Amino acid sequence: MPKEFKMFPIGHIRRTEDGVHLEILDPYRPAMMLLDKFSHLIVVWWADEHDNEKSRSVTQTKPPYAEDKLTGVFATRAEYRPNPVAITTCKILEVDEESGIIRVPNLDAYDGTPIVDLKAYFPVCDRVKEAHIPDWLSDWPEWMPDEGWGP
Amino acid sequence: MPKEFKMFPIGHIRRTEDGVHLEILDPYRPAMMLLDKFSHLIVVWWADEHDNEKSRSVTQTKPPYAEDKLTGVFATRAEYRPNPVAITTCKILEVDEESGIIRVPNLDAYDGTPIVDLKAYFPVCDRVKEAHIPDWLSDWPEWMPDEGWGP
Repeated sequence: MPKEFKMFPIGHIRRTEDGVHLEILDPYRPAMMLLDKFSHLIVVWWADEHDNEKSRSVTQTKPPYAEDKLTGVFATRAEYRPNPVAITTCKILEVDEESGIIRVPNLDAYDGTPIVDLKAYFPVCDRVKEAHIPDWLSDWPEWMPDEGWGP
Repeated sequence: MPKEFKMFPIGHIRRTEDGVHLEILDPYRPAMMLLDKFSHLIVVWWADEHDNEKSRSVTQTKPPYAEDKLTGVFATRAEYRPNPVAITTCKILEVDEESGIIRVPNLDAYDGTPIVDLKAYFPVCDRVKEAHIPDWLSDWPEWMPDEGWGP
């Protein structure tokens, strides 16, 4: 038997008419302290719709943006992968530690998606000065759009 | 009972006299296909030394680089946090799909640390043009060092 590692939700992604926010569960709200001093954060979330044997056994795929290109899932950001853990960097619009609410522009995740971690965006860790990408992505923007992503 | 999400190792971090590499387990090697077309990747790893009740119940800390600053763990990159999942961006030096070896410059993780996911670095997802950080980090570099990090 391989080792297994257990994660628990620390909050959920909420999509409402007023926009998108992260709702952090009560016991984890103290961990939000001073997060508002950063401009961006990385949301680590669990793609629960792909937490099944079929999605978790996919190792290669033709991504929607390059349908003629068979690639390994580690060379994509697809949510179907052996461990369906996803990361999304986004701008922080507002942090309210008391209510556990973090307002963000948008996110590529459904309403109710579990969040497993939040990490402040540290340029020294996360910001690559010269990054090369393959031909089939060459027309994509070179920077994360501040208005966010998503459905 | 809160929901729980299970992850399994897809490989391990190896530190040898010849440098640092990622060793991907056999069933997951097909997922490495075309990863070599990217300059950088994000290693998602499990801080197994902190997978215990004590480390996982920490919500606030005084980080080593700002010992007078009590912050929430979500405002840090500390490995002790509710879900000890860590992400490290690094340069890709060499990918060998057959042996499952990915050579990287350095990594802030011990020899034998389990890897749970790999994600190609997509500038459009991960590269923030203007990121603001707090005063206590203001003397840190603005970019990830290509020579890597670590012990």
